Amino acid sequence: MSNYWSKRLNELEPYVPGEQPRQAGLIKLNTNENPFPPSPRVMEAMKQAVNNDLRLYPDPTDERLRTTIASYYHLSEKEVFVGNGSDEILAFAFRAYFDEDRPILFPEISYSFYPVYAKLYGIPFRTVPVDESGAIDVSAFFQDNGGIVFPNPNAPTSLALSLEQVEEIVSRNLSQVVVVDEAYVDFGAQTALPLIRRYPNLLIVQTLSKSRSLAGLRVGLALGHPSLIEALNRVKGSFNSYTLDRVAHAGAVAAFEDEEYFQHTRSEIMRIRDRTIKQLQDIGLWVAPSSTNFLWVKHGRVDAEEIYSRLREAGILVRHFSAPRVKPYLRITIGTEAEMDALISQLSEILVR
Amino acid sequence: MSNYWSKRLNELEPYVPGEQPRQAGLIKLNTNENPFPPSPRVMEAMKQAVNNDLRLYPDPTDERLRTTIASYYHLSEKEVFVGNGSDEILAFAFRAYFDEDRPILFPEISYSFYPVYAKLYGIPFRTVPVDESGAIDVSAFFQDNGGIVFPNPNAPTSLALSLEQVEEIVSRNLSQVVVVDEAYVDFGAQTALPLIRRYPNLLIVQTLSKSRSLAGLRVGLALGHPSLIEALNRVKGSFNSYTLDRVAHAGAVAAFEDEEYFQHTRSEIMRIRDRTIKQLQDIGLWVAPSSTNFLWVKHGRVDAEEIYSRLREAGILVRHFSAPRVKPYLRITIGTEAEMDALISQLSEILVR
Repeated sequence: MSNYWSKRLNELEPYVPGEQPRQAGLIKLNTNENPFPPSPRVMEAMKQAVNNDLRLYPDPTDERLRTTIASYYHLSEKEVFVGNGSDEILAFAFRAYFDEDRPILFPEISYSFYPVYAKLYGIPFRTVPVDESGAIDVSAFFQDNGGIVFPNPNAPTSLALSLEQVEEIVSRNLSQVVVVDEAYVDFGAQTALPLIRRYPNLLIVQTLSKSRSLAGLRVGLALGHPSLIEALNRVKGSFNSYTLDRVAHAGAVAAFEDEEYFQHTRSEIMRIRDRTIKQLQDIGLWVAPSSTNFLWVKHGRVDAEEIYSRLREAGILVRHFSAPRVKPYLRITIGTEAEMDALISQLSEILVR
Repeated sequence: MSNYWSKRLNELEPYVPGEQPRQAGLIKLNTNENPFPPSPRVMEAMKQAVNNDLRLYPDPTDERLRTTIASYYHLSEKEVFVGNGSDEILAFAFRAYFDEDRPILFPEISYSFYPVYAKLYGIPFRTVPVDESGAIDVSAFFQDNGGIVFPNPNAPTSLALSLEQVEEIVSRNLSQVVVVDEAYVDFGAQTALPLIRRYPNLLIVQTLSKSRSLAGLRVGLALGHPSLIEALNRVKGSFNSYTLDRVAHAGAVAAFEDEEYFQHTRSEIMRIRDRTIKQLQDIGLWVAPSSTNFLWVKHGRVDAEEIYSRLREAGILVRHFSAPRVKPYLRITIGTEAEMDALISQLSEILVR
């Protein structure tokens, strides 16, 4: 704290991202990155974009990328927004749709950046209960509110709502915006995409960080009614005209053009996930039925924090959160088959002792 | 406007960036880009960074880049912040240091993004007069205020304040933050860098977009007391943990490592600028004594908007602003020698008629 800080700054509680360790040789299963590299076509396109044109500003309207995504999802480009990672889009969305005088709703166990955004803008919030199994109490979204945001599938619980449940939330909140954060949707959940032409209050946010192996490139997207997209453009235009660089534009376009690679790698991750779930159950862990590229696990006897520390000593990094409700659990990213084998082998040792 | 928009959104007046024309073959002198490509070492480093590690998040602390910049400027890395272009850093700075209850000050003719940021956060502002020659009335910064921001050299006037003038502004406002936006400082003005260890209320913002030919990469930096830098980190951590991608990190580091290329290209631009000023004066234009990579010009008889249109018809794009005080002027970026020759030749024709 300092005399030079604004009053609002003192109220902020910044998000703490998962560790990006510098130690080589660690098996990194802590930030839900994709174990597969980006598509070779993405890397080729990015290399091509490293040219003399870097002296010029990028297109502030991101037109080529928005057109590519619109065509991929059979939408108009007026229904597409892109940003510097889905986190930036969420930050814009909180400013675009929510006000200081009405509380927004999000699940009690959820992406821990939501309360951080709310505090940034002074937006009040209430949380919606999550039961012991990790299930969101959908009916709690039917109370008076100033807006709604939730991940589907939810993180860190890995559980998905059905399209019917999502539609119920959206349709029963027609006078405010519902943001569905689909960061993990490509790993087996149902996207709310079929709903956006029917519900002008629905914004879908997605990212290239997970299912398209591009966490290092920082590209996210939002899909919704042109009026919701225009709102995001107004915030962006009041914040930073050029959020995506030329190389990111090129890489992101190519990512949507290589459908075969996308389908292959996401299937592989789902296959490895389902095999890993069985192996974890076999050694006595409880595992939530994941629709994501990570697992939400706990053990009846051995403390999650202890498992976390023992794995870390063995060179395997997973994520442990210290908040009371989530403290008994670990969040484990799906890695390669070999990484999962190493995980299972270490866990067996830890749990047997 | 829409029922789904927040109240604040309706008050925003987004910044309008200079046009990025798709038409090939235009001489583009409208957004102060550098006519020289980025250093070959920068492009090599970026290509190297296009690798399998793109599947992993970038370092959210930007450590390697901050260390490189700290070493370049003989600072500690705690005195360095980096962001997705200097625009993003300015957006963070407005939230970090300024409050809703006290007006901030910036020059009447200045970077037109400042009032946009102020409206984004509901921060009131007053402007400081600029005289007919474009000079800022420095004494007007000595009134009660909640913070100060100004570009040095100023844009679009191209005029620099001396280090003594900047110090006077900073030293007479010790109880609030003074942000000096040095986007163009490398083209001949004095940086306020010698002041930052003496004035904990001084934040310097710079960019790689202009003097380092990297407008297409989106990297800016801020230098100041660790407490001011911590404030920026708190806003960033409440907004987007990973603002710079892996390729941007690599390119920006290399830009600071190729001092020879930087010195050569910025000298060339200053040389072409000084030659162009003489040529413009020879054909009857008034030109402000520029310390930047652009010129602020007007003609006694022919209307600026007409000159703008005629140049555009001839395939030369310059910038014209419609606000009353700046309407009589054009802002013209320094291009290559050949581009400047084409400009002079077209202008001669337009002005002779």
